[in-house]
Amino acid sequence: MRTLKIVLQYDGTAYAGWQRQANGLSIQALVEDALSPIEGSRVVVHGAGRTDAGVHALGQVATVTLAVAIEPPALARALNALLPPDVRVLAVEDAAPGFHARFSATGKAYEYRIINAPLVSPFHHNYVWHVIQPIDLKLVREASARLVGTHDFAAFQGARARVVSTKRTVSRIEWEDGGGYDLPLVMRIEGDGFLRYMVRNIVGTLVDVGVGRRPPSHVAEILASRDRTQAGPTAPAQGLYLVRVNY
Amino acid sequence: MRTLKIVLQYDGTAYAGWQRQANGLSIQALVEDALSPIEGSRVVVHGAGRTDAGVHALGQVATVTLAVAIEPPALARALNALLPPDVRVLAVEDAAPGFHARFSATGKAYEYRIINAPLVSPFHHNYVWHVIQPIDLKLVREASARLVGTHDFAAFQGARARVVSTKRTVSRIEWEDGGGYDLPLVMRIEGDGFLRYMVRNIVGTLVDVGVGRRPPSHVAEILASRDRTQAGPTAPAQGLYLVRVNY
Repeated sequence: MRTLKIVLQYDGTAYAGWQRQANGLSIQALVEDALSPIEGSRVVVHGAGRTDAGVHALGQVATVTLAVAIEPPALARALNALLPPDVRVLAVEDAAPGFHARFSATGKAYEYRIINAPLVSPFHHNYVWHVIQPIDLKLVREASARLVGTHDFAAFQGARARVVSTKRTVSRIEWEDGGGYDLPLVMRIEGDGFLRYMVRNIVGTLVDVGVGRRPPSHVAEILASRDRTQAGPTAPAQGLYLVRVNY
Repeated sequence: MRTLKIVLQYDGTAYAGWQRQANGLSIQALVEDALSPIEGSRVVVHGAGRTDAGVHALGQVATVTLAVAIEPPALARALNALLPPDVRVLAVEDAAPGFHARFSATGKAYEYRIINAPLVSPFHHNYVWHVIQPIDLKLVREASARLVGTHDFAAFQGARARVVSTKRTVSRIEWEDGGGYDLPLVMRIEGDGFLRYMVRNIVGTLVDVGVGRRPPSHVAEILASRDRTQAGPTAPAQGLYLVRVNY
């Protein structure tokens, strides 16, 4: 038996998210169903992050333990032949004993893309959040700076989430300016871990700030409140990309 | 009554092409169905080029004659509110009397995008032709140069096409190098008009040259033959973009 690390990209548009679901097709199920005939028995794949329905990945990582003798590059080719074209395996490599995509992760990087213009290009509409009101990036950056660091992010987690600790460290939030119709604004965020919906709730709150609905200073009050109802709306899934998992 | 010029972009993935069809949803039908309730009666829209099923447009042009009093920018907004997000109206403007999207056109520009790598990004697979064998752009450019100019392109038209003259002038063919997986090779072609499937048959032939299946000089023989069976395969629709219509 050996443990393999699989790096994946996917267009999440058509899927119910990473995690296997009773209803809806998940990326995890696709990968498991592609691996099982190669292994000759049912396998379970562990992903680094459970991306939600509609969320995309540029660098999802998964681990699987296999008994079958197959070289990692051959396994990558076999998986790409079996998986649909909106899910691609970038690499398969041998992992150190005990390596686990989720529990070994030391951090993650996400991107969030927004088209801030009256119209969205027909080639982008599944891949961005469309915000029509002009976003003032100066205000957004001021508010973003208040989120960087180690904080209790309870106010930014999904309403029904249950975790032991809601303290997380966000090491950076950067915004790249966009050019409208077909060139998105991009937020890049990196941290040691993220609560469920945390990135999307941060984006929803920062866009509230950017369009003048709240002052930048309000972000500190939201953090202090630890109250989900204080933060902004959850930004749509389709603008979110899991970019990288750090180990 | 006045004539309006409509400039459109669309992602052709989900459509049976520009032209209204008995089977399958066309862009023309979508635009006509969006305009009809505004006009208060059935309208007919004329497109500059009938893009085939799966072909995309960055600058399709259409004309329509309307009796209703509505300012062009308001009509553009109304159309974008009524059309699905994979079809966008970039502009509506008053056209000169007698202007016709198709018959007034003096030329067209197309792009064709190819991913020349072992894998295609999940975000590109509907928008490129995937060619795995390495393409030698030097050979492709040499062959392309033989197509520029005024020629009888009968060998490059669709097998069942019937037109009065198959003589066309191609004013330029340029190839931009790509970076693999998620950065396509792009062919840009411009001319006074194109026969049905002509761009895709040219691409199929030039890729044959690029992968070493035919010498660049063979292109001149194909032109001289006027025989469709001499040219290469028809490149897939999904890599083709109608970029601009010249008037």
